[in-house]
Amino acid sequence: MFNKIFGRSSAAPSGPEERLKAIEGSASAEMAAEMLTRPSALEQLTREEARIVVSYMMPHKIAEGVTFIKEGDTKETDFMILVLDGEVTVESIVVSRTEPITVTVLGRGSLIGEMGLLDGEPRNASCTAVSDLRCAILSRASLKKLLDDDPRTAAKFILAISLRIAERMRDGAEKLKLYSQLTQAMQEEINSLAPT
Amino acid sequence: MFNKIFGRSSAAPSGPEERLKAIEGSASAEMAAEMLTRPSALEQLTREEARIVVSYMMPHKIAEGVTFIKEGDTKETDFMILVLDGEVTVESIVVSRTEPITVTVLGRGSLIGEMGLLDGEPRNASCTAVSDLRCAILSRASLKKLLDDDPRTAAKFILAISLRIAERMRDGAEKLKLYSQLTQAMQEEINSLAPT
Repeated sequence: MFNKIFGRSSAAPSGPEERLKAIEGSASAEMAAEMLTRPSALEQLTREEARIVVSYMMPHKIAEGVTFIKEGDTKETDFMILVLDGEVTVESIVVSRTEPITVTVLGRGSLIGEMGLLDGEPRNASCTAVSDLRCAILSRASLKKLLDDDPRTAAKFILAISLRIAERMRDGAEKLKLYSQLTQAMQEEINSLAPT
Repeated sequence: MFNKIFGRSSAAPSGPEERLKAIEGSASAEMAAEMLTRPSALEQLTREEARIVVSYMMPHKIAEGVTFIKEGDTKETDFMILVLDGEVTVESIVVSRTEPITVTVLGRGSLIGEMGLLDGEPRNASCTAVSDLRCAILSRASLKKLLDDDPRTAAKFILAISLRIAERMRDGAEKLKLYSQLTQAMQEEINSLAPT
């Protein structure tokens, strides 16, 4: 399924230099590299390093309506996706309910499935293309290869992924605080309404 | 505050080899290294690599009752702690309430403050030693140094940190699902109790 690389494809390139050459002049590859460079408290990927990461990714198109990550899936967890263009809904079937609820909508520059790539645990939400998607896919095997070929770039990239997970973790923690308040308020309301 | 290294301290060691020599024979350093090696879907730190990471950490003691991380703190976010011995309560002041609630209790082998180390954002909970603590501290500066000295080990260590954050993220997501169910059930109860 994921057998091309960005730009002119020919014989499979091996090291970072050959790979960089292969993506030269690809506008999608450059866009992907730009999306991967973000400020951080530690070390940030330079544009050149981001290009190296991108050279280990594969361009891919997903048609509107396709659910490409399924909640609970334990088998296909060995890839993550960088959205270059298009929108994705993230849905979750809340425990013991049958109707999925939309958790969030993701667009350009979003990373999807990075936790599964790292830990191999079951997917915790389903992702569906709301429009035709252009994206870049990084497989676990390619990340391992990058770790061998260019550990410093791999380290900074993994750091960038961690930062995104940490950001979501902080959002989640804020939501938990709000829910905690909400249930307290609801409990008080129930107490005041209940016949004594 | 954090000016020692594990084992025999002498002149500050510079590279990984000198550092490894400096921690040779330290039981605490060996314990810390053991705690850092954990199975993972990607690459796992070997014991030797974990020892290298530990050689960039500083042993530290925290007395019972000391709150060493404060919720909302934006200044001292440049370190993380590996708990070697003792227990820590993690407390959070829920928004608009004045009483902190205990979120969790952490013990041996727990990593604390790793998100702040990575992203430099304000601390999202307070941590207090419930008993005297023995721990190992890694500063952001030391992590940067490790990234320069031995990028492959740094990459695998950052990966290990990410896995722990991802694990907490998944726990948080489960809790959010439960809260979502709980508030729906409570809303139904309120509706059934409310005068029509």
